[in-house]
Amino acid sequence: MEIKEIKPAEIEKKSFEIITSLLGDKKILPEHEAVVKRCIHTSADFDYADNLYFSPDVMEVLKKALKNGADIVTDTKMAQAGINKAKLLKYGGEVHCFISDEDVIEEAKKRGVTRSLVSMEKAAKLNKPVIFAIGNAPTALISLYHLITDNKIRPCAIIGVPVGFVNVVESKELIMTLDTPCIVARGRKGGSNIAAAIVNAILYLLD
Amino acid sequence: MEIKEIKPAEIEKKSFEIITSLLGDKKILPEHEAVVKRCIHTSADFDYADNLYFSPDVMEVLKKALKNGADIVTDTKMAQAGINKAKLLKYGGEVHCFISDEDVIEEAKKRGVTRSLVSMEKAAKLNKPVIFAIGNAPTALISLYHLITDNKIRPCAIIGVPVGFVNVVESKELIMTLDTPCIVARGRKGGSNIAAAIVNAILYLLD
Repeated sequence: MEIKEIKPAEIEKKSFEIITSLLGDKKILPEHEAVVKRCIHTSADFDYADNLYFSPDVMEVLKKALKNGADIVTDTKMAQAGINKAKLLKYGGEVHCFISDEDVIEEAKKRGVTRSLVSMEKAAKLNKPVIFAIGNAPTALISLYHLITDNKIRPCAIIGVPVGFVNVVESKELIMTLDTPCIVARGRKGGSNIAAAIVNAILYLLD
Repeated sequence: MEIKEIKPAEIEKKSFEIITSLLGDKKILPEHEAVVKRCIHTSADFDYADNLYFSPDVMEVLKKALKNGADIVTDTKMAQAGINKAKLLKYGGEVHCFISDEDVIEEAKKRGVTRSLVSMEKAAKLNKPVIFAIGNAPTALISLYHLITDNKIRPCAIIGVPVGFVNVVESKELIMTLDTPCIVARGRKGGSNIAAAIVNAILYLLD
């Protein structure tokens, strides 16, 4: 069993070198590389070299929004935990997750809908530029779709990477029909870790 | 675009039915099914049908420990966020993550080692039955290996599922050489989401 001694600061650098080498001559647009590689870094799943869709200019939009202090709204406490909040705050942004709020829980129960759906409606009332980072609930994306087409909200961009088997693929394809800039993991894969990884990849590009 | 209306409570049930059907006649031991399927549920990655190693009796050990109020120690705030803490508390357990503690940060910097390593040493001082759930840092697993072989700690079990490219495979194989009961995701894959999913799968078996 050979375990190489390696300094903490070197681990991430070395990891990205290995990812780059394993990607070989895979075609990835240079402006998308940081996001694609960080998704692979967080999952060791090379499907993210193929399944990530970037709308035109979404990277520029996201970088500009974060630099100007946009907030992030996410659908899970896990994604909230995974996002680099110190780095985000440096530019003036914070992360919101309303999923466990008492009022959200109560209203979801009353209406027989998911908490994710209600938490998006609550987010629509934030009076700040917002980026949505959805890693879990297709119902959050579907709710966002309706809020946007009803002109109730106009987010800077959507990171739409829920994972799963029920309405997940469809909810992501739906978001891609909007004019809102988006990054979407097509297919079933995604997750809170992927949502956080994408936000962090863009934050690290700002330095 | 066809999005089926489905009640929140039905989504998870339906998801597991789809997973079961997609697994087809894949051989999975009945006692491991709940864990394997929940890892697939959280990642949509069917590699977890093949890469999870269960030491003999680990499921029984984990169920008994959780039922008796064992605490969980994890290496990331994301895994901590993902674990069902209400369910855990029902049996008397709580989740610890020391990775962002001031003393851990300071000591890691001083010694030039990872915070994950130091956070395991801190966990070794807990005076309670403990299950480790490691989803990120191979250095946490390597540290645990040494703490166990030096008789400084004796955890109930280890859930060893770090993800990545540097020392990850090796650290997991190392844990499998111990007598400590373990669940390990062999290979590069894993993550905080997988660590949380495994803990939750076992908690849900207790009901």
